[in-house]
Amino acid sequence: MSHTANVTAEEAVHGLSAAQRRFLEGLLPEGDRLFSAEETLVFGTDASRKCGTPLAVVRPTTEAQVVELLRWADAERLPVYPRARATNVVGGCVPQRPGIVLSTLRMARIIDIDEHDFVAVVQPGVITADLQRAVEARGLFYPPDPASQNISSIGGNVATCAGGMRAVRYGVTRDYVLGLRAVLPGGEVLATGSRCHKNVVGLDLVRLLVGSEGTLGCLTEVTLKLLPLPEATASLLAGFSDLGAAMDAVRNVFAAGILPVALEFMGPEVLDCAALLNDVPWPKTVRAALLFRLDGSRAALPLEVDRLAAAVRDAAPVWSAVGVGRDEEEPLWTIRRSINPASFLVKPDKMSDDVTVPRGRLREALEGIRAIAEARSLTILTFGHVGDGNIHVNIMHDASVTEEREHALAAKGEVTDLILSLGGTLSGEHGVGLTKAPYVHRQLSKLERGLMAQVKAAFDPHGIMNPGKAY
Amino acid sequence: MSHTANVTAEEAVHGLSAAQRRFLEGLLPEGDRLFSAEETLVFGTDASRKCGTPLAVVRPTTEAQVVELLRWADAERLPVYPRARATNVVGGCVPQRPGIVLSTLRMARIIDIDEHDFVAVVQPGVITADLQRAVEARGLFYPPDPASQNISSIGGNVATCAGGMRAVRYGVTRDYVLGLRAVLPGGEVLATGSRCHKNVVGLDLVRLLVGSEGTLGCLTEVTLKLLPLPEATASLLAGFSDLGAAMDAVRNVFAAGILPVALEFMGPEVLDCAALLNDVPWPKTVRAALLFRLDGSRAALPLEVDRLAAAVRDAAPVWSAVGVGRDEEEPLWTIRRSINPASFLVKPDKMSDDVTVPRGRLREALEGIRAIAEARSLTILTFGHVGDGNIHVNIMHDASVTEEREHALAAKGEVTDLILSLGGTLSGEHGVGLTKAPYVHRQLSKLERGLMAQVKAAFDPHGIMNPGKAY
Repeated sequence: MSHTANVTAEEAVHGLSAAQRRFLEGLLPEGDRLFSAEETLVFGTDASRKCGTPLAVVRPTTEAQVVELLRWADAERLPVYPRARATNVVGGCVPQRPGIVLSTLRMARIIDIDEHDFVAVVQPGVITADLQRAVEARGLFYPPDPASQNISSIGGNVATCAGGMRAVRYGVTRDYVLGLRAVLPGGEVLATGSRCHKNVVGLDLVRLLVGSEGTLGCLTEVTLKLLPLPEATASLLAGFSDLGAAMDAVRNVFAAGILPVALEFMGPEVLDCAALLNDVPWPKTVRAALLFRLDGSRAALPLEVDRLAAAVRDAAPVWSAVGVGRDEEEPLWTIRRSINPASFLVKPDKMSDDVTVPRGRLREALEGIRAIAEARSLTILTFGHVGDGNIHVNIMHDASVTEEREHALAAKGEVTDLILSLGGTLSGEHGVGLTKAPYVHRQLSKLERGLMAQVKAAFDPHGIMNPGKAY
Repeated sequence: MSHTANVTAEEAVHGLSAAQRRFLEGLLPEGDRLFSAEETLVFGTDASRKCGTPLAVVRPTTEAQVVELLRWADAERLPVYPRARATNVVGGCVPQRPGIVLSTLRMARIIDIDEHDFVAVVQPGVITADLQRAVEARGLFYPPDPASQNISSIGGNVATCAGGMRAVRYGVTRDYVLGLRAVLPGGEVLATGSRCHKNVVGLDLVRLLVGSEGTLGCLTEVTLKLLPLPEATASLLAGFSDLGAAMDAVRNVFAAGILPVALEFMGPEVLDCAALLNDVPWPKTVRAALLFRLDGSRAALPLEVDRLAAAVRDAAPVWSAVGVGRDEEEPLWTIRRSINPASFLVKPDKMSDDVTVPRGRLREALEGIRAIAEARSLTILTFGHVGDGNIHVNIMHDASVTEEREHALAAKGEVTDLILSLGGTLSGEHGVGLTKAPYVHRQLSKLERGLMAQVKAAFDPHGIMNPGKAY
């Protein structure tokens, strides 16, 4: 683990004052506030494997406790770092300066699922997949499905505007947040938005908080839009002899007027990597693969699958397989899901990015990334949500080998420059956090960053919310 | 027309100073700046029929001219009122204080339509329907379809976050704005967002500008997301003996997992009103109607229509008709489109609202509005986008009769209170403008309004952009 927090020796030694510690002891019962390094250490990191040292960890169970905490922390000018399951891969949950980590895991109740209003009201600590199962049991559908959905929380999904496989057709977390409650520094409770599916009264504070990476306030409740649950789903996995053929297939599908639920891409390095963990069903000539999902009614779906297959066929796949319904689809998706665990068989460390380019620039982006990998003698795994132009770039390396680490870091900068030169963005769904913060000025103008800083100051005048992150 | 602008006699007489007039004459060629009351009067009103008096009207053709104008106006502390086609029904375009009206109608170029990136780049004055036709000719689809689409502009659509019939399935304007350029007071050009379909770097300035009703800056370019064009559409119009049966049908359709493209409702007063202009095909027993649209592939669509019809049938409609393809569908939609012209056969004036309630509270809202109408001896036409909970409420009256006008105004307040008591919102798609501004404090908290004011101050420190509107 790399240690990035700028904790001075003095601060680290002093920690909280006796009065500060007494405040937290008065606010929360034992077990819900942690002070010892043994207990707090794990709350100083996230899936980025960056690490900071919390002065204390608190686990409020009520909004009233969050109010008291943020009133006090603001007066004390103490940074507050909200977190739930910390699946964030960019260091968004890492305490960059000494401060209080606020875990929302004890605020994890599904408050309401309403099949008439088509909304769910949840606390931030609710696990995304738990919510999905709960609403599906009632014939409802919450589409955002980040790859971390089985372990990530709604609070984190909202804070990062999480995407997922189904974003091509159904959009991202932003598109499902109708209302929210957030405690602001100073302790005021912002209740904004509603249970209405449309609402255009005033500036859009709801979407301003979505994706704000915990820099404006601490979410305590989220109202989410639900859809009717489609009756059936089907998937098609197709293998091509090269990238060009796969990109032709993508083009054919859209040109046929088909908007798939999901459209995932796996490059040659990824296919080799997946073959390390799985018995892959395709021939060795497959050097690029596309994985589609469709949904619809049981009656109509087979016809839609036929149309999709015909559009793909025009790009001459060397292999393909169709699965109708969850049981048949699951094996096709297992390979996609194994990429992350399989990647560590290639190298022990990865630098993970989720760059996004305009959809038409995908081929250039993928070819450019491969050229960077070759020039630096690195394996770079590229896969992801090709329907959105959103590519997961995993620069594999061994961080204990100085030269490899340096090459990987240089490659990350080169990939960033390549993506920006194609009109792309640093992040499609992970956010900026700590790891992309050094690159943000390459994408955002001084004017944009100035406006963002002023907006932040309106919510958080003393800069206590998740400082050092995002923008 | 009612005159709402707070122009003092002194200001109205003085108008622009000689130096101010000289500046505008230097900035723009003759014909692109108007000063005489005869020429400017029409730019002081919009579809709300509210009216103010512009000091001058300017019609820039380039962003550079907008930059110069906003630099100067900010220094002069002169209000600026952006407008395009002024189809706004809430007075959003009306100069509430003496200032400069900035017409974007000479910035009306479709700059780019890209079938690989699936984006369109347009200037603010482009007519929505013109863009739709242009992209459809290339097999692409821009879903937002406000009722005004044949005469309204993309700039206005973005400024109000316009909705439309297709919002049930495809969302609203917000969901299609990927990037934009806007000139801020002082003349800085904010270029934010991109051509990427996903982007989560920094606070969401793009969506902050969407729906901001011209209060933050002047749009000069918008990058919109496009979808593949569905192959075919079909519509179903169903008549029911009462509101309850129609609401049952809505419930059945969603419960069957069907998410229609459009789901429009027409109440009994609206059906009577439509019958004044059209030979309606249904029997007199029809007192509520639903109009659905579906889309999909030519092969699968008939099966989807069958499923929809079956779900509707369970609610015992007394009459129904199906149209497959544009030619067959058109007659079904003519009736819906005739509501606005037909309404003026009932009474010469209307107070028009677009309140929205949580989807499950629709029946209560519609019944409550009818009770208000009866108690006040008024005809209130209710129709709209029932799939979103978005109801158009038209309080018909004769404004020249004092008592009727007063009853109508009282009814508007009562409808507002009813909607808010059901957890609803003042506006689903029109915005606040001038006409709803007196009611905003009933919906937005002091904290929300305070934050909005601070955000506005970051963009527009001297408050010159469309003052007196929205929040």
